Amino acid sequence: MTLIDGKALFSNIKNGLSLQVASMVSDGRRPPHLAAILVGDNPASKTYVNAKVKACKEIGFNSTVIEYPENVSQSELLSKIEEINHSNNIDGLIVQLPLPNHIDENVVTHSIHHYKDVDGFHPINIGRMVLGLPCYIPATPLGIISLLKEYKIDTSGKKCLVIGRSHIVGTPISILMSRNNSIGNATVTLAHSKTKNLSALTLGADIIIVAMGVPSFLKSDMVKEGVVIIDVGIHRVKSDHTKSGFKLVGDVDYDDVKHKASYITPVPGGVGPMTIASLLTNTLQSAKKMIYSHT
Amino acid sequence: MTLIDGKALFSNIKNGLSLQVASMVSDGRRPPHLAAILVGDNPASKTYVNAKVKACKEIGFNSTVIEYPENVSQSELLSKIEEINHSNNIDGLIVQLPLPNHIDENVVTHSIHHYKDVDGFHPINIGRMVLGLPCYIPATPLGIISLLKEYKIDTSGKKCLVIGRSHIVGTPISILMSRNNSIGNATVTLAHSKTKNLSALTLGADIIIVAMGVPSFLKSDMVKEGVVIIDVGIHRVKSDHTKSGFKLVGDVDYDDVKHKASYITPVPGGVGPMTIASLLTNTLQSAKKMIYSHT
Repeated sequence: MTLIDGKALFSNIKNGLSLQVASMVSDGRRPPHLAAILVGDNPASKTYVNAKVKACKEIGFNSTVIEYPENVSQSELLSKIEEINHSNNIDGLIVQLPLPNHIDENVVTHSIHHYKDVDGFHPINIGRMVLGLPCYIPATPLGIISLLKEYKIDTSGKKCLVIGRSHIVGTPISILMSRNNSIGNATVTLAHSKTKNLSALTLGADIIIVAMGVPSFLKSDMVKEGVVIIDVGIHRVKSDHTKSGFKLVGDVDYDDVKHKASYITPVPGGVGPMTIASLLTNTLQSAKKMIYSHT
Repeated sequence: MTLIDGKALFSNIKNGLSLQVASMVSDGRRPPHLAAILVGDNPASKTYVNAKVKACKEIGFNSTVIEYPENVSQSELLSKIEEINHSNNIDGLIVQLPLPNHIDENVVTHSIHHYKDVDGFHPINIGRMVLGLPCYIPATPLGIISLLKEYKIDTSGKKCLVIGRSHIVGTPISILMSRNNSIGNATVTLAHSKTKNLSALTLGADIIIVAMGVPSFLKSDMVKEGVVIIDVGIHRVKSDHTKSGFKLVGDVDYDDVKHKASYITPVPGGVGPMTIASLLTNTLQSAKKMIYSHT
């Protein structure tokens, strides 16, 4: 069994990005600049935004966090986004989700210009991804592709099962794994809450990408010997074996499954860090106008 | 075995659209207007455009065909599209494909404003389809959904195999069949040229949508009893049994497979007519601003 080390790859990617930033700066250009909008006091949201800001600092990106109270109006958010859309000083803009109920998440996230949509949530970026055109690919799916590429995992003609059809992970990774590309060309099945006899599908799969949101769901008796496992889930569950009384687990019962897997991502340290790596990569691509040649 | 009669449903849809056009006109509004750009002398392209114009006339839509010689420049096409994008008189615009090699099909089709993209090829419409938002769904996939709905075929939890990953049929129908919707909620597998052991997949499927472009490929020994078959292929092959010496066949060996199928589309008269039905439906929706509330 080979552990797919997302933390190590994240570190390598950050090193590579640092060098590119240094080269931009020595050419007299400003570093890439990521802006994040954070609404309300959700502790998880704050943690995620802080992790992104920390990573920006480590590699020399500029970053700006714009905080709003829980009761901010949608129109105030939209006018700030419009301002950033027109700013020559900011390359990427993300709005940390979830937003309060009185705000339409689609309206807000889709108002970010697709040139600066480094989360890859805008319909134009998703549509271009489906069509195989240059675009910002959503962060978690891009992170998964990067891990598979780093570990030279052969996906062509393999049976890939994606469990979970969310807009930000399951659906886009199912599309990416099917496309005609070096990481891709898999025969992909997308399973979800309405799927029957899931075990028959997991047992038949060469590669399983689990993004269903159920702690420790996937067990060793559900997979075949040599399977590749990518675990997107992350849950805080009670534990008698840690000081805090809690531990982090994924959608896969790691200790049970690892003996049968040829490759497996741990939780934490697998897919999670790669999401930030993708966001930084997308932001650098925006600063360098590698996807869209806007001025 | 029930034959899925696309010709009959096309006729019903045209009747419904006619009534809506009559109602619009009696309200003092102009009828929906579809414009088509046709480049060069490709006989198949002319046939397709003529069929669309004929259907428009039958139901009272206005239609305009703008013809260009093979050597038209891309910029000339783009300026005509820009003109139509701004016209208050035209609701839907299609560019008949293929275009000559010196023209970039993506640049041309994506320059059609997504409000008027009744073929559903624009990245915004594709992205919105992935996200489950109101949009113009590509004509052939929408036609397939309409057939399944008309025949009240239960798709929820069924194993659906889509063969072929083209941008205009296989990929979008695989996305639509997976989504959480009345026609949808299937467990979808997308097969393609790199898929191994296709027969194992066809034998396991409850619903097979074949869009691979190989005449009479799917045989009875590859499917299970009671399967639902949707055949997107259309090929002109030699025949000793017709006056012309040719006949039309699909990707399915219809005479061989029909005995095992619970539902099956014939070729011709199955999916084919539904493509035009979808185009007309999308154009009416544009005229009524049902998808996008632009002015």
